[in-house]
Amino acid sequence: MRQFIVLGHDVPTTPEFSLDALPSEAGRLDVLCRCVNSAFFLSHDLRDDVRVSLVLQDDVTITFEGSELHRLNPDERSTAALVRKALEHKDEAIGHMAAESSPGVAISRKDFETTLSEAADGGTVVQLHQDGDPIVEREPPANPVFVLSDHHDFSEEEAALLSEQSDARVSLSPRALHADHAITVAHNYLDTSGFSAY
Amino acid sequence: MRQFIVLGHDVPTTPEFSLDALPSEAGRLDVLCRCVNSAFFLSHDLRDDVRVSLVLQDDVTITFEGSELHRLNPDERSTAALVRKALEHKDEAIGHMAAESSPGVAISRKDFETTLSEAADGGTVVQLHQDGDPIVEREPPANPVFVLSDHHDFSEEEAALLSEQSDARVSLSPRALHADHAITVAHNYLDTSGFSAY
Repeated sequence: MRQFIVLGHDVPTTPEFSLDALPSEAGRLDVLCRCVNSAFFLSHDLRDDVRVSLVLQDDVTITFEGSELHRLNPDERSTAALVRKALEHKDEAIGHMAAESSPGVAISRKDFETTLSEAADGGTVVQLHQDGDPIVEREPPANPVFVLSDHHDFSEEEAALLSEQSDARVSLSPRALHADHAITVAHNYLDTSGFSAY
Repeated sequence: MRQFIVLGHDVPTTPEFSLDALPSEAGRLDVLCRCVNSAFFLSHDLRDDVRVSLVLQDDVTITFEGSELHRLNPDERSTAALVRKALEHKDEAIGHMAAESSPGVAISRKDFETTLSEAADGGTVVQLHQDGDPIVEREPPANPVFVLSDHHDFSEEEAALLSEQSDARVSLSPRALHADHAITVAHNYLDTSGFSAY
């Protein structure tokens, strides 16, 4: 399985925002929606062996499970509607128990540390960093976990947690990429590895 | 310069659509907006040596010129607003003369054949095709032109025009990708080529 954890530092953890104002009222939720898109969509197909965890304000985690998703569409607005719906179910998430809000989408009261350590259990955490080794020079792990941030850099605390849990530090590009583009490049690396002449 | 031509088969050529209904009323304009995003955005930066031409219904072409863009934001809705504004200026585009609707965005009455042959003049048209050579095995051209289609396949006529003008046929991935993801992968290939250990 390929896992992507995306940190949304400004996205509200309550559903009182308009779908018409994702970059402003919804704290750049548009960025996270594009990450969900990049993680799952193929042309006329969905990647079912993928999990995306959106960590909002280090407070709640909304998980998209590829094998169970039914109603995902590629546009930002409809994905934002799924996030908003998940937030409406927040009160049903008790302790670390998740509450499913729509098929394949669930919300839980997990912070980044908890979500990361659960993903790391059985997965290989790959830190994306401009100073890392070029990804093409590394053998791809079987169950990679990629951690990305929205339009803000990782906080010091987040970066420290990530370094602690990481098994490798790699670079995707000589250019600094948006999180959703990084997901696309990471998928491409995994898709083409092992296909000597794909 | 890197050029991307994207065909929108169902996008209206008049501005009477709602920004709340990009996948439906606006004929999957959301796909084209994501292509514009992938073509231009870097983290906290814009690629200025890029041109994107959106060809709508083989009737009008809306061009985004990286070196002149001022008001581009990454979200779909605001890019769709730029497209709609360009369509409001369609009557000012006479013959093949373009009308600028906002900084770096212009509309002209050019069909696919005209837009493609202008791009091919000085550029190398690269056809993306699942049966092409893996792109990593090709030397990148100096001024590549990539042609992509929205959620529909190329029509027979479009495919024939493209084959006629193409200098190379390459494959980006063993998986069939959305157009915007293909743009990201193509950029990554060009960004990392020539950086032996980038």
